[in-house]
Amino acid sequence: MHIKEVGVRNIHFPVKIKEKGGQSQHTIATISMQASLPAWQKSGCIDTFIAILNRSVEAFSVRRFREILTQVCEGLQARSAGMEMTFPYFIKKSAPVSGTSSLMEYSCTFSGSVGGRDEMIITARAPVTTLCPCSKEISDHGAHNQRAEVVLNVKTDKLVWIEDLIALIEQSASCELYALLKRPDEKFVTEKAYNNPMFVEDVVRKVAVAAMAHPDIRWFSAGVESFESIHKHSAYAFVDSDDIFREQAA
Amino acid sequence: MHIKEVGVRNIHFPVKIKEKGGQSQHTIATISMQASLPAWQKSGCIDTFIAILNRSVEAFSVRRFREILTQVCEGLQARSAGMEMTFPYFIKKSAPVSGTSSLMEYSCTFSGSVGGRDEMIITARAPVTTLCPCSKEISDHGAHNQRAEVVLNVKTDKLVWIEDLIALIEQSASCELYALLKRPDEKFVTEKAYNNPMFVEDVVRKVAVAAMAHPDIRWFSAGVESFESIHKHSAYAFVDSDDIFREQAA
Amino acid sequence: MHIKEVGVRNIHFPVKIKEKGGQSQHTIATISMQASLPAWQKSGCIDTFIAILNRSVEAFSVRRFREILTQVCEGLQARSAGMEMTFPYFIKKSAPVSGTSSLMEYSCTFSGSVGGRDEMIITARAPVTTLCPCSKEISDHGAHNQRAEVVLNVKTDKLVWIEDLIALIEQSASCELYALLKRPDEKFVTEKAYNNPMFVEDVVRKVAVAAMAHPDIRWFSAGVESFESIHKHSAYAFVDSDDIFREQAA
Amino acid sequence: MHIKEVGVRNIHFPVKIKEKGGQSQHTIATISMQASLPAWQKSGCIDTFIAILNRSVEAFSVRRFREILTQVCEGLQARSAGMEMTFPYFIKKSAPVSGTSSLMEYSCTFSGSVGGRDEMIITARAPVTTLCPCSKEISDHGAHNQRAEVVLNVKTDKLVWIEDLIALIEQSASCELYALLKRPDEKFVTEKAYNNPMFVEDVVRKVAVAAMAHPDIRWFSAGVESFESIHKHSAYAFVDSDDIFREQAA
Repeated sequence: MHIKEVGVRNIHFPVKIKEKGGQSQHTIATISMQASLPAWQKSGCIDTFIAILNRSVEAFSVRRFREILTQVCEGLQARSAGMEMTFPYFIKKSAPVSGTSSLMEYSCTFSGSVGGRDEMIITARAPVTTLCPCSKEISDHGAHNQRAEVVLNVKTDKLVWIEDLIALIEQSASCELYALLKRPDEKFVTEKAYNNPMFVEDVVRKVAVAAMAHPDIRWFSAGVESFESIHKHSAYAFVDSDDIFREQAA
Repeated sequence: MHIKEVGVRNIHFPVKIKEKGGQSQHTIATISMQASLPAWQKSGCIDTFIAILNRSVEAFSVRRFREILTQVCEGLQARSAGMEMTFPYFIKKSAPVSGTSSLMEYSCTFSGSVGGRDEMIITARAPVTTLCPCSKEISDHGAHNQRAEVVLNVKTDKLVWIEDLIALIEQSASCELYALLKRPDEKFVTEKAYNNPMFVEDVVRKVAVAAMAHPDIRWFSAGVESFESIHKHSAYAFVDSDDIFREQAA
Repeated sequence: MHIKEVGVRNIHFPVKIKEKGGQSQHTIATISMQASLPAWQKSGCIDTFIAILNRSVEAFSVRRFREILTQVCEGLQARSAGMEMTFPYFIKKSAPVSGTSSLMEYSCTFSGSVGGRDEMIITARAPVTTLCPCSKEISDHGAHNQRAEVVLNVKTDKLVWIEDLIALIEQSASCELYALLKRPDEKFVTEKAYNNPMFVEDVVRKVAVAAMAHPDIRWFSAGVESFESIHKHSAYAFVDSDDIFREQAA
Repeated sequence: MHIKEVGVRNIHFPVKIKEKGGQSQHTIATISMQASLPAWQKSGCIDTFIAILNRSVEAFSVRRFREILTQVCEGLQARSAGMEMTFPYFIKKSAPVSGTSSLMEYSCTFSGSVGGRDEMIITARAPVTTLCPCSKEISDHGAHNQRAEVVLNVKTDKLVWIEDLIALIEQSASCELYALLKRPDEKFVTEKAYNNPMFVEDVVRKVAVAAMAHPDIRWFSAGVESFESIHKHSAYAFVDSDDIFREQAA
């Protein structure tokens, strides 16, 4: 019987990720690898993954992703091989008024496969602020707002920078987040969110419009989970570019 | 633009689940619900989910699952609606030699949708023991073994009991787990695992054979993650019935 | 050498918890038990915990907590024995204006020991809203607000109801949370939070004042973690009644 | 009223950690900081933490830990200040027979405070194998074994290397773990564990003996959690050097 995938999960490994500016940053990835093996292939050989990974310590990068998968595929004589790696990624941001600089952390994932679908997905996750339009409309003062998380998955045949995906997300919410704000900055973000009320549906729609306008994204999906400040549960919205194109064609 | 899904996530709710024996057990579910809304549908109405859920307190059951989704669909004039609920489920087991009785906990999920694909998936997760065939073969004494988790997803048009899915999983590993074992039981499970060495591939293969033989399962997938006692990472294998049928047809 | 504690961890078990109103609710507890054993005590006997727990299925309650510990202590001839059980607990709440009823989930813990310190701690965790006083003061409109979690630990020689601890917490924040709100309720909670701005320090201080006024609480600690909507990190404040009394004595 | 602690939690930050060999490694820390503020101290100043942290990007190290806390204490005119940082740490290991090199990941924590207790705690966590003595004794073949985690906390006035704490732990279990093993290595670790059966109590006892013999450790505690391969729950043992010394004095 054909076993679809055999692999390893939950490997932690130091990697270097190329930054948009030309430099690279050190981070720690959580990695899974799997391969589709022919029936005659002896088991136990999944240590091949670990061995290839350990030879890659010095210069792991996005381009290396595909090389590693190809090595795994050839080393195991596999029909196909896949890998996912999730890692924290840091971007230096300037506060909107004072310009104070601080580091923001985002969670990103590279996932891809060779030998089968041969595709690469980049996932960027960014925290944002959502401010409720309904609450603003009906209340004499204030409006409930909260932290939300946007998850954007994109497929591309070109190079798309994490920095650009994060910027795309951050421009699509009531306001973006910062690690460090001075008083004039706090005034700015409070008022910006208040003047820019958005439901989770509004946020995914704005993310989708921006992603469709990006020349190098050929597929995407986007989800927004808002950790409501007035409820214990989350509000959630999700969009997939396949559905949008199907609707536009209809 | 069409928003694929709007919904709520991470709702905790007490529910009652029907047992195979005719009784029902109290448990706590973590629930997500989402609907595909027409573009004109006003937002903020996701509280409809919570309202319907709160009317369902007294008699939540598997059959209620579809009723609730239909109510959500109609209440929101949605094209389709979906729900997932994950809950701990307890089964009384007897130790293999002494017959000592104890409660084992399993994690299960019901997920389904109406108005679109109209399908229902039951997920059963069970911990098992895997004992490494390679380690046994090459070592003078002993063999490394460890806890593993099997996740079995099945689609059915009939009623499939959680108890039967759990039994199917537990019969497919080196040995099954118990909450309480006396000394003769511990001897029994140690020797059973030693006499029954299995890689993760062997476990998913055996789960797949049993699932294909079940008359009421029309699709399944199964994954096994083994928390290796000699490594910090996991070994993993996965199988999908669509691939098996495609291979058999070829 | 004296081993301080031997025990079991991460046992999931269905339990019944007494409600203030006289009824009881079914829930699922995550349990740890440990004992301080004499040096001559044979190991492997930690299954005693599981056996006692499995005999307790039918009528687990707060009073049973001490009985179970005493049985463990005697069964193992231990110097002392301890147990912690954490469980979701549900309280029916009425929305502040419409009176609409819904279930809110809280996480609670009972922990205690016999044979040593002989004490019992009740922990109640409740989500609340915090609205930032600084943001309100400096902004022309609005103020950032967010979900926060208050953790209150109390020691008592009497019976203290979970419901009373939750109410104490919920009255100490900018606003409390509900599972279900209609539009007039949403207006109410938005304006209540706006009119009641509090830093995390203000929340723990108010919790502390209320806890000190409670006749049956002889020690407490309280922590508040606010999941800031303008940052990715949390603001945190913590208070311990021992420090307060020491300061008052000075 | 005196608020014991005000602070920030859950900050992710890239740091460099000094290795025993003289080099340093890049990793990502999760950081919490808190201070004990005088009553007159204005709130909102917790951004001081973030600002100091952001100035520390280039050369964070163990020595910097105390400097940062002192800066926080002075910047906030606090009575005392504390910080905890938890980070993955990688050590290159050679397989026991083949000598094959691979990277193992460990989780470590530095925690400390100034202005109050003025102490520094180093926590090292390492996965190990435990093989059950009872199972081995009563079974004709094999013995159940599994992954376990040892957590060792030490206080020191000198410099204690993470590498030495990890080695101390790994020498105290049935066997240690590796990221990559060839067949002769797998034979070696299987047989080593089989010839070295240990309950969790045996592991903490051996850790304790080694920690007491270390000249630079003046206090420690150690816990071992074994993820039993025959149960769903864990076995656990814990020891604290204060209890050991008290017992020896009695």
